[in-house]
Amino acid sequence: MSFDRLIEKIIKTQNPTVAGLDPRLEYVPEFIKKKAYKKYGKTLKGAAKAVLEFNKGIIDEICDIVPAIKPQAAYYEMYGYQGVKTLYKTISYAQKKGMYVITDAKRSDIGATMEAYAAAHLGTVLVDDEELTPFGADAMTVNGYLGTDGVEPLLKECRESDKGIFVLVKTSNKSSGELQDQKIGDKTVYGLMGEMCEKWGETAPGKLGYSSVGAVVGATYPEQLAEMRAKLPNTFFLVPGYGAQGGGAEGVSKAFDSNGLGAIVNSSRAIMCAYKKEECDEEEYARAARRECIRMKEDILSYLPKITL
Amino acid sequence: MSFDRLIEKIIKTQNPTVAGLDPRLEYVPEFIKKKAYKKYGKTLKGAAKAVLEFNKGIIDEICDIVPAIKPQAAYYEMYGYQGVKTLYKTISYAQKKGMYVITDAKRSDIGATMEAYAAAHLGTVLVDDEELTPFGADAMTVNGYLGTDGVEPLLKECRESDKGIFVLVKTSNKSSGELQDQKIGDKTVYGLMGEMCEKWGETAPGKLGYSSVGAVVGATYPEQLAEMRAKLPNTFFLVPGYGAQGGGAEGVSKAFDSNGLGAIVNSSRAIMCAYKKEECDEEEYARAARRECIRMKEDILSYLPKITL
Repeated sequence: MSFDRLIEKIIKTQNPTVAGLDPRLEYVPEFIKKKAYKKYGKTLKGAAKAVLEFNKGIIDEICDIVPAIKPQAAYYEMYGYQGVKTLYKTISYAQKKGMYVITDAKRSDIGATMEAYAAAHLGTVLVDDEELTPFGADAMTVNGYLGTDGVEPLLKECRESDKGIFVLVKTSNKSSGELQDQKIGDKTVYGLMGEMCEKWGETAPGKLGYSSVGAVVGATYPEQLAEMRAKLPNTFFLVPGYGAQGGGAEGVSKAFDSNGLGAIVNSSRAIMCAYKKEECDEEEYARAARRECIRMKEDILSYLPKITL
Repeated sequence: MSFDRLIEKIIKTQNPTVAGLDPRLEYVPEFIKKKAYKKYGKTLKGAAKAVLEFNKGIIDEICDIVPAIKPQAAYYEMYGYQGVKTLYKTISYAQKKGMYVITDAKRSDIGATMEAYAAAHLGTVLVDDEELTPFGADAMTVNGYLGTDGVEPLLKECRESDKGIFVLVKTSNKSSGELQDQKIGDKTVYGLMGEMCEKWGETAPGKLGYSSVGAVVGATYPEQLAEMRAKLPNTFFLVPGYGAQGGGAEGVSKAFDSNGLGAIVNSSRAIMCAYKKEECDEEEYARAARRECIRMKEDILSYLPKITL
């Protein structure tokens, strides 16, 4: 139930990090692009096929040491429906390799429409009497601006299909404070959103202490991470903003509980572009990604206790 | 620039409404589904093809009297990448028929990721030296919870490609008040979001009085519609919640300025399912949709002045 499956994978790998797969075409090595363009042309399909091969290479190299991937939907939609097909294939491929998949889609809507998103990304749909799986991720990010109507249909999916959601609480970007830091009485907007996560989560509890409703809290705001960790004991955190965006390992350690659990830290660009930073042969891109995953894990673990239940 | 193209179509048709194409499979007549399943099986592709034919039938019948369609992304993602292909084809088809297309995607993200969404849904992408159009809608709905970082990349696209965005301000659902009605000092959260829309819009003004940054304000909240109309003189409104959700024509009239402009009202289910309500032959579904569009237009116009500049 809920994030229990993710937590088990984190304990098994002793690695509370997730590899963000946000594959801009400029991150993909030339040899992969050339091959795809030769076969499919310089088309959306060609781009989508290149991205898929890039992703598979990384997944192959990291699936034994990293518990999860987080594909960012925008970078797939960017290559049209062909790119969205690559999103689907990336999700299936990673799951076959034993990884947990968080689709970073930040969807928001109400009622029946949110049910459609829930079915699309986490659940199944009926086509006449056939039950089919459109994308089948394990968890999805969600924007809670619309309130409970926008979250309830997801909770149903979480309970029925053993899935999870991460609601945006305090995002990692510079202008997140424009709305999120504003005060409502003596609470901040992000504090109120955090409380709603904890409340929503009560209806979909997990066995390992965390409910199906997680929260996104940015690595760039360690104080708020600490505040939210203290106030939201049953809410699992997805922490973006480590590395490229400026969040450090000491800061993100605030997101964790005393068992070294309760959070998973994302890195995208540093993993995907490790081969550029290393200036190694681009054919080595996946092994460079693995090296960066290990470096990141060790950096973060150096501030945490041994991860255990 | 901005919503000028939409406003021109509204004046030409004397119709400030948009047909929401949120095609749940149960809305699609049996004869269309049977044909699609026979050819493609009871598969996601079969469902997607049925939805596309359903949409085309409605577009053919209403394109001379309705200025715009609003496909809701969730109902396409629900049928996987095959459904997303139907979204793409629906957008192109409606545009070829002269309609303005608002993709209701409520996307939210920051920086480079929002740039990717902007390119995906409104702009173009480069695949090597080829400039390609992934979805090519005219406007998109957006969730502004992340602040300016999440909106700026869209403003760039709006200016460069003559597109528009609608930011969620006060949504039509019952629980929208949980966050949106909360007070920040003497302002509501939705009021603050509305002010941000007006401010963001200053950098992308239109020639006809409205900027590229519109706002979503629900038909179910006439008081807030009136308040926002008075406070946000350059912000064009997209008004969902008319009909099925309970918003009436007198209420939605508050969204308009003294020229009968400044807003477009959406109806989805009542149009798509008009043939069910009429209990007419399902082969008549598109003509029933047209009749409902005319009924809705007349209902709304009865509370408005003649639409003019």
